[in-house]
Amino acid sequence: MLVNAPYLMFLGDVGDQLAAKTAHGIVDWRREWCLGQLRLPNCKADLGIPEMSISEAAAKGVKTMIVGVANAGGVLPDHWTAVIVAAIEAGMDVASGLHTRLGSKPEIAAAAAKHGRKLLDVRHSHERFDTGKGTKRPGLRLLTVGTDCSVGKKYTALALEKGMRDAGMDADFRATGQTGVFISGRGVAIDAVVADFISGAVEWIAPAAAPTHWDLIEGQGSLFHPSFAGVSLGLLHGAQPDCFVVCHEPTRTTMRGVKHPLPSIQDVIDLTIRCGALTNPAIRPVGIAVNTEKLGEDEAKTYLASLAKTHDLPATDPIRFGVAGIVQKLAEMYPQSAGKA
Amino acid sequence: MLVNAPYLMFLGDVGDQLAAKTAHGIVDWRREWCLGQLRLPNCKADLGIPEMSISEAAAKGVKTMIVGVANAGGVLPDHWTAVIVAAIEAGMDVASGLHTRLGSKPEIAAAAAKHGRKLLDVRHSHERFDTGKGTKRPGLRLLTVGTDCSVGKKYTALALEKGMRDAGMDADFRATGQTGVFISGRGVAIDAVVADFISGAVEWIAPAAAPTHWDLIEGQGSLFHPSFAGVSLGLLHGAQPDCFVVCHEPTRTTMRGVKHPLPSIQDVIDLTIRCGALTNPAIRPVGIAVNTEKLGEDEAKTYLASLAKTHDLPATDPIRFGVAGIVQKLAEMYPQSAGKA
Repeated sequence: MLVNAPYLMFLGDVGDQLAAKTAHGIVDWRREWCLGQLRLPNCKADLGIPEMSISEAAAKGVKTMIVGVANAGGVLPDHWTAVIVAAIEAGMDVASGLHTRLGSKPEIAAAAAKHGRKLLDVRHSHERFDTGKGTKRPGLRLLTVGTDCSVGKKYTALALEKGMRDAGMDADFRATGQTGVFISGRGVAIDAVVADFISGAVEWIAPAAAPTHWDLIEGQGSLFHPSFAGVSLGLLHGAQPDCFVVCHEPTRTTMRGVKHPLPSIQDVIDLTIRCGALTNPAIRPVGIAVNTEKLGEDEAKTYLASLAKTHDLPATDPIRFGVAGIVQKLAEMYPQSAGKA
Repeated sequence: MLVNAPYLMFLGDVGDQLAAKTAHGIVDWRREWCLGQLRLPNCKADLGIPEMSISEAAAKGVKTMIVGVANAGGVLPDHWTAVIVAAIEAGMDVASGLHTRLGSKPEIAAAAAKHGRKLLDVRHSHERFDTGKGTKRPGLRLLTVGTDCSVGKKYTALALEKGMRDAGMDADFRATGQTGVFISGRGVAIDAVVADFISGAVEWIAPAAAPTHWDLIEGQGSLFHPSFAGVSLGLLHGAQPDCFVVCHEPTRTTMRGVKHPLPSIQDVIDLTIRCGALTNPAIRPVGIAVNTEKLGEDEAKTYLASLAKTHDLPATDPIRFGVAGIVQKLAEMYPQSAGKA
């Protein structure tokens, strides 16, 4: 799925900031693509970027209006339809992360057909994939894995993209979730793919590349999460990563949405190597990324130092302390990919 | 998905017996549900059951016409439409294992709507599932797992259903593939479910049951197959089996459709226990089922005896030598479920 930038961010009239989490993620990582925001009366979310009308956005060259909000049930309210139709009539594609397909509203479908614009439902898979083949392909790949869902796998991959590029390395973030697709303008929401094609879709997301090029693949779920481990395993096999970063949130006591305790970081390292070796026997861990926002500064540093020593790996909070240690280790372990910066 | 028996088996005009593999499987295991077959001129498949017209089938009380054939690309040929419409007009539901949805043909969709009949596309998931919760539910469960795809997992589960029922045990086959759904009249083609809902769909397929009741769950793929391991892991977590039978084909050198060698039976036992323990810490192997059709009788017996000794488990070819050894072991390991027969 390809989403053309720049974007107009449509927030509708959602009731709080949390509902615009996807839109916030896009602005955090691709501020330069987000030319403005369009909000309906009573909208309680605010991205802190210029207010912009459809006609202003069209005049500034916006290519896609992003419906970057989540409301109850993922439904598209009827009173948003007119704005979406107006964007299409002004020459924009429209991309949405809602469960409701844009084209299920007859007025939107008709406008898109009439004006030849694309409707992109990121939560639904349009692409036809092959089944995964598991054949080793050229290029270097890193996958972020986790002890749970929502522990910073996307953020870590994006922070590594920035850090590695700053260090002169050739690296691209590869999106496997809806926010990531909007951020990179490309990718697949892997949890929406039909089960038979999980690993095949990831082979498509991170295709053969130059031997010194890095794909930084956004992980999903956890091999230890009883709801989503199948997705995580298909993603691991399709990604065939050379190395992986384990992401963790240390204060969580049960895995998201279920009653299971979190696995240990060592459990995740061991099972990732064991299962990942099927499509890349050279797989190895390269770092640990921890969301320490609930820990004090000293406590966080002590905890990270302890993890680094236990696992003999760089351990960091990418938001708080950056990813320089992991980038340096990657340059040492894979010197052919080290930049000249 | 519920498919109402008895069935009329529609074979179209497929070019060979192999194209009717699904239909053959249904007749093998549910001969009493298959009242007749309907074939178009030049059909090269034959199930060996009475030829039957639509009107005869309706008169005999057939509830569902099964399109139990696979042709190139899984497409529904235009010249089959008239027969399908006639079945609907005669009061039957229609169930198909083709990729093409029955309802995508306007004449078929219109006839079903007019006559209030169900169109069942077994390869597509209609049901809305929850995500898996991984919470232990009552009832005993056995899962067939494999060193590869197509090594007898469905056949083994069906043979166990028969063997356990004959021994007075309370056991139900649980289908996770299209042929299995037709055979049991219930189930989900798990590889067609959206990735996020694999384990949730299996929790639906094998719900809470009496403490002495066995669900015999049809496995899919292999934890070691690079195309489908995600499906296999989600199935394992959703099934939360108390025990499993490893299915194997000893002459195969590479896994189906890829270049990877097969894992060993011990590899499969170890990884199944390791991953399965997430949703059922008591998981353990209970037998080995081998497709020995390419081995001579003595060679097969020697091989099975060697496997039994190495793994300290009953090892059999369910087709050639039956499943009595595994049924007996189940009765010993789980005496509360042993029958009085």
